Amino acid sequence: MGESTLYWIIPIAGIAAILFAAYLARDVMARDTGTQAMVDVADTIREGADAFVKRQYTTIAALAVVASVIIGAVIAVVETPAVADVPSLAGLPIGVLTAIAFLVGAGCSMLSGIIGMTISVRSNVRTASAARRSLVEAVQVAMRGGAVSGFLVVSLSLLGVWLVFTLFQVFVGDVTVEEAPFLIVGFGFGASFVALFAQLGGGIYTKAADVGSDLVGKVEKGIPEDDPRNAGVIADLVGDNVGDCAGRGADLFESTAAENIGAMILGVAVFKIATDLGWPNPSAWIFFPLVVRAFGLFATMIAMFFIRGKETENPMNILNRGYWVTTLLSVVGLAFVTSQMMQTTDGASPNGLPVWVWFFFAGIVGLATSIAFVYITQFYTAGGFRPVREIAEASRTGPATNIISGTAVGYETTAVTALTIGVALIASHWLGAQAELYNANGVNVGGIFGTAVATMGMLMTTAYILAMDTFGPITDNAGGIAEFSRAEAGAREITDKLDAVGNTTKALTKGYAIASASLAAFLLFSAYIDKVNLILGNQIAAGVPGVELLNSVNMADVNVFVAAFIGAMLVYFFSSLAIRAVGTTAQSIIVEVRRQFREMPGIMDYTQRPDYARVVDITTRAALREMVAPGMVAVITPILVGVLLGYQAVAGFLMVGTIAGVLLATVLNNGGGAWDNAKKYIESGNLKDENGNVLGKGSDAHAAAVVGDTVGDPFKDTAGPSLHVLVKLIATITLVLAPLFIR
Amino acid sequence: MGESTLYWIIPIAGIAAILFAAYLARDVMARDTGTQAMVDVADTIREGADAFVKRQYTTIAALAVVASVIIGAVIAVVETPAVADVPSLAGLPIGVLTAIAFLVGAGCSMLSGIIGMTISVRSNVRTASAARRSLVEAVQVAMRGGAVSGFLVVSLSLLGVWLVFTLFQVFVGDVTVEEAPFLIVGFGFGASFVALFAQLGGGIYTKAADVGSDLVGKVEKGIPEDDPRNAGVIADLVGDNVGDCAGRGADLFESTAAENIGAMILGVAVFKIATDLGWPNPSAWIFFPLVVRAFGLFATMIAMFFIRGKETENPMNILNRGYWVTTLLSVVGLAFVTSQMMQTTDGASPNGLPVWVWFFFAGIVGLATSIAFVYITQFYTAGGFRPVREIAEASRTGPATNIISGTAVGYETTAVTALTIGVALIASHWLGAQAELYNANGVNVGGIFGTAVATMGMLMTTAYILAMDTFGPITDNAGGIAEFSRAEAGAREITDKLDAVGNTTKALTKGYAIASASLAAFLLFSAYIDKVNLILGNQIAAGVPGVELLNSVNMADVNVFVAAFIGAMLVYFFSSLAIRAVGTTAQSIIVEVRRQFREMPGIMDYTQRPDYARVVDITTRAALREMVAPGMVAVITPILVGVLLGYQAVAGFLMVGTIAGVLLATVLNNGGGAWDNAKKYIESGNLKDENGNVLGKGSDAHAAAVVGDTVGDPFKDTAGPSLHVLVKLIATITLVLAPLFIR
Repeated sequence: MGESTLYWIIPIAGIAAILFAAYLARDVMARDTGTQAMVDVADTIREGADAFVKRQYTTIAALAVVASVIIGAVIAVVETPAVADVPSLAGLPIGVLTAIAFLVGAGCSMLSGIIGMTISVRSNVRTASAARRSLVEAVQVAMRGGAVSGFLVVSLSLLGVWLVFTLFQVFVGDVTVEEAPFLIVGFGFGASFVALFAQLGGGIYTKAADVGSDLVGKVEKGIPEDDPRNAGVIADLVGDNVGDCAGRGADLFESTAAENIGAMILGVAVFKIATDLGWPNPSAWIFFPLVVRAFGLFATMIAMFFIRGKETENPMNILNRGYWVTTLLSVVGLAFVTSQMMQTTDGASPNGLPVWVWFFFAGIVGLATSIAFVYITQFYTAGGFRPVREIAEASRTGPATNIISGTAVGYETTAVTALTIGVALIASHWLGAQAELYNANGVNVGGIFGTAVATMGMLMTTAYILAMDTFGPITDNAGGIAEFSRAEAGAREITDKLDAVGNTTKALTKGYAIASASLAAFLLFSAYIDKVNLILGNQIAAGVPGVELLNSVNMADVNVFVAAFIGAMLVYFFSSLAIRAVGTTAQSIIVEVRRQFREMPGIMDYTQRPDYARVVDITTRAALREMVAPGMVAVITPILVGVLLGYQAVAGFLMVGTIAGVLLATVLNNGGGAWDNAKKYIESGNLKDENGNVLGKGSDAHAAAVVGDTVGDPFKDTAGPSLHVLVKLIATITLVLAPLFIR
Repeated sequence: MGESTLYWIIPIAGIAAILFAAYLARDVMARDTGTQAMVDVADTIREGADAFVKRQYTTIAALAVVASVIIGAVIAVVETPAVADVPSLAGLPIGVLTAIAFLVGAGCSMLSGIIGMTISVRSNVRTASAARRSLVEAVQVAMRGGAVSGFLVVSLSLLGVWLVFTLFQVFVGDVTVEEAPFLIVGFGFGASFVALFAQLGGGIYTKAADVGSDLVGKVEKGIPEDDPRNAGVIADLVGDNVGDCAGRGADLFESTAAENIGAMILGVAVFKIATDLGWPNPSAWIFFPLVVRAFGLFATMIAMFFIRGKETENPMNILNRGYWVTTLLSVVGLAFVTSQMMQTTDGASPNGLPVWVWFFFAGIVGLATSIAFVYITQFYTAGGFRPVREIAEASRTGPATNIISGTAVGYETTAVTALTIGVALIASHWLGAQAELYNANGVNVGGIFGTAVATMGMLMTTAYILAMDTFGPITDNAGGIAEFSRAEAGAREITDKLDAVGNTTKALTKGYAIASASLAAFLLFSAYIDKVNLILGNQIAAGVPGVELLNSVNMADVNVFVAAFIGAMLVYFFSSLAIRAVGTTAQSIIVEVRRQFREMPGIMDYTQRPDYARVVDITTRAALREMVAPGMVAVITPILVGVLLGYQAVAGFLMVGTIAGVLLATVLNNGGGAWDNAKKYIESGNLKDENGNVLGKGSDAHAAAVVGDTVGDPFKDTAGPSLHVLVKLIATITLVLAPLFIR
């Protein structure tokens, strides 16, 4: 199959996925919305979410415009012909192009977030209504609502990268196919920038509302969760959407965009080899990441029709069926794409197999890593296994031992995470190296490209994973709506089941996001080195004295070591700011909810309606204010390190910062998830005292477990996911600003 | 002054310090031991501590003998002439020498621990007795008791290194002065090995006893801390000694030994330059670390006589006076040693100053870093400042917000830690580089040697710092003895004051230990590279094909990246095991103390005496059993990484593992210290409700702060300090086993 045919698959798949998302959205919107009481509460949630998203995205858009101007100006000034990656465009042109790419990236990310949220806050009530009739129907509504986000995120990122890549080649003179990937790194930075603030703002909002309303409602007043008498309850339900749906969507949009661009940059090295050897489709090596993602989208579309099952079935099985269909179709797609795009003329068969076969297996390693993380996360955060049981047991002796035990579990999870990633990297690198792609300097670039292919293989299932993730807040909301509107017991039983499954899928997505961030780290790090060497190579060609290529990042250099130290520190400091932001915001909510209980005595006997909107408003303001400090620290630190310590030191900063960030995120996400489920484990009556009596709700052990759950909230839903974004942000920021550090 | 004169300062200072320690011990032992009740409880503590130390050190000695045989055998087998650092001794001789050095290092570490502990558990009752008369006298007794440990640790480490170094040159043929430092790395490994198990065992013991007895006594039974009716109280008091005294002593013994050896190895590079240039005392550059430490010992001896003051004075001021005297005398000593030892014949004055002046200033950077850490730790963990106040405020809304706030503070402390270390490294490296010491390959080794001199400067005050540290458990014990024996209120008031100061000095020591570990990391890392290059250079000289020197540790290499990932993971996994070990051990104590309360009803009304010895025995067995798993993980992981991924990957493992370890230790130590003092802040009546009423002991806020304090216990006294040891252990283990990884 010709290069051009496969090239057109990219926009076709992107547009098909958008149309498919529109079809799903229409299908969801056509469903019934249940009783008037359900509609009322859903409307309140929707208004709160819309208000927050509007204000949040207005702020982010303003920040992005300012940032784009600054970045464009900096690039225009520093990227002189001597340090430009594309010397023919040095100065103003490259500044403008970078700013444009940044804005398109930021815009696509915001668009996918806004539309996804819009559907999500309309799917919740329809899921609740469907739950009155059928479990399978409720699963389908929630999953289709979630898939709107999933498809939009992946297709807009794909189309955005493709569009910028194509337009720059068509409308800007002298841009060759191997230069273009370097020009579009701004797209990834724009996506990172939006993701950082979307995840921080959403994460602070959701957990501050959760912690604040629970501390007053559940702890001080003794009323149940999601009780309509709690003035903070709507803010809490709004939070599920803005944190888990919009936040994680932006996170994975960024992964998709940044990793595509990183893989394309690494593809340039193979492009040159293919050109030299006269292989049929040299540029296919650059497009490969986009094409393989397009096939991932098709696989996910087909899988949506396999989301069906029996009423008596565990809903997790229904979702897993779709996941396995996606994965198996991805394997087929991967085989097709690698065999078609990675052709060699001479029938070269290094180590006895065609070149494409080695990369096909590297892609399989990526898909296998994805599956491994899904099950690892389940082991560490689901109720039936040793870690959660251990925390539940420790709750017998009070909150202190609960926290100690949860911390130990969180720390422990780093072991299998690091080993799995290590095996995946070494295996995909080894497989790629077997393809024996030697560049002009005699270096085998196949290994690095193998890790890129593994990352692409892993990301083929992103749309499905993201649909499962957004399933979480939709069913969580559906449960809240059912509780709030005092729906039939049958409906609430079903929404409770779905909510439990949603907790699992949310945890899985975080595991998946971490694994993809780790693989991406190595990819983007290599892309950074490639970009630096492109610039240094241009300098050497121009006869600048004393310039050498960056062949290694030397940890024994004192600047590199100090930069690495700062990189590892940054993840702690950033998390500290994010966690503290939740505390500060929660305090404002506590004060307000308490005030309403005090000044509106009719609330407790349902004769007065709490002022939900006021709490939503306070939370919105506080979350937006509090997201600025950690966001700025994340953006400014890598720039300072680069300017003060130089381009080699930044590479050390990037690498060690990523390692530290991935591990701390693992600790925070899994620790938090395990605490959450230890509480649920006790609530389900699984903990018994020495006489065999159940220690359930109301027991001291349960109270201790609630403390652990509350501590875990900002860990797993604010700091942890924000760290995913941080590690990719520092990669894209250094990619874009590399010329600033080479001076 | 001649080289040989200064050389003899080393044994003279070492022996003088031992004699001085004997004098202090005699002085302490001659003091009165107070009432019979005090003697009785002190005897019980002493018996418990002696029993634990005896069993612990027997276990450690057995492990050390086995380890020395294995290491000797491995070295003998792998260190063939092709990969030996000293080819003339390849094979069996080098294996035997390494095993001997290992055993001497292990033996000196154990000896200093045992003697220090012996005096410490005899100083406690004498301090309590002195507190009945005079605050100043009590301070003096406690400080002198602590100084016995301080002087023994530093002098035995100094004498041990000197002795092995000298004997190997005298009794083993063909060993030159520049080869000898490589032969004695086994000494550092032996010290690390003992320190790891001493710190782990002691740390698990002390916090399991603390948590276990508090949870039953204070929480379940509502009796005060250190109440004689609590069967776990003696184990708790024993724990103070075995954890803070023996554990930290072994930790700093290891620092001292490992950093001396590392600095000597780096001195070899300068030795070669000095020889080539015909400078007067080439070997002075190798001895310099030992000589400067000798002057540090003299400075500390003089400072002991400045520990005096008024009865009404804050005891912290009395201790600070001695610290400042030590520091100022160290500056003088540093100026003398650098000017005498770092002489150049040609009156070379690179950049306008004599060579020694640049290194003198590098040493000052080290001393300044030490002072900085003392004050940083105070800011983050002492009651009057923002961080502790913040945690106390957060306790109003319960244990969950207390934990969240303390976590945020712990994470935050990494920022100033990393920046201070970064500045210290870059400054000392820059100063050293100004001395312009170019080796045969044209590399300026002055920078690295500058960081080594800074480390030595910092470690000049070790003996004093360690004396202040051991002051902590002695006064803590004195308070327990006073409470237990129902001593006069005046005595208890004084011991309470001293106990509070002791908490501060214990925290300071941890800050100091972390800072020294960070500087040491860079030092030992550089020494590792030097050793690898010595071996590779021998291979190149022998004509082995394809060998290149290790000029950089390339983070872009996939094996190095994966090894770095595993290094960062190890510190979490190790901490997880250590924290869990405390939980497991505490559970056995809880069961036993509860059983005694249940089966011996006379305990509560003082008619029955609890069986303290049984709890001590249970704790001893459990702590020794639980220290094995984390200890083994720490020892085996670096070996596996080296064997599987190679010598370059190990360097990445070492560097990133150290960075991650230093930062996690900072989080755990400072977070734990802040939680502890937030509780004390509330107990001192500093927290008030909105109506101005004090929220003190018995309030909900206090209960929440107690949860935080309990959580912080295993963080700050088990996992954190064990991480200090871990980062040095992975450095010494890789230094010793480097030949195993080059194959």
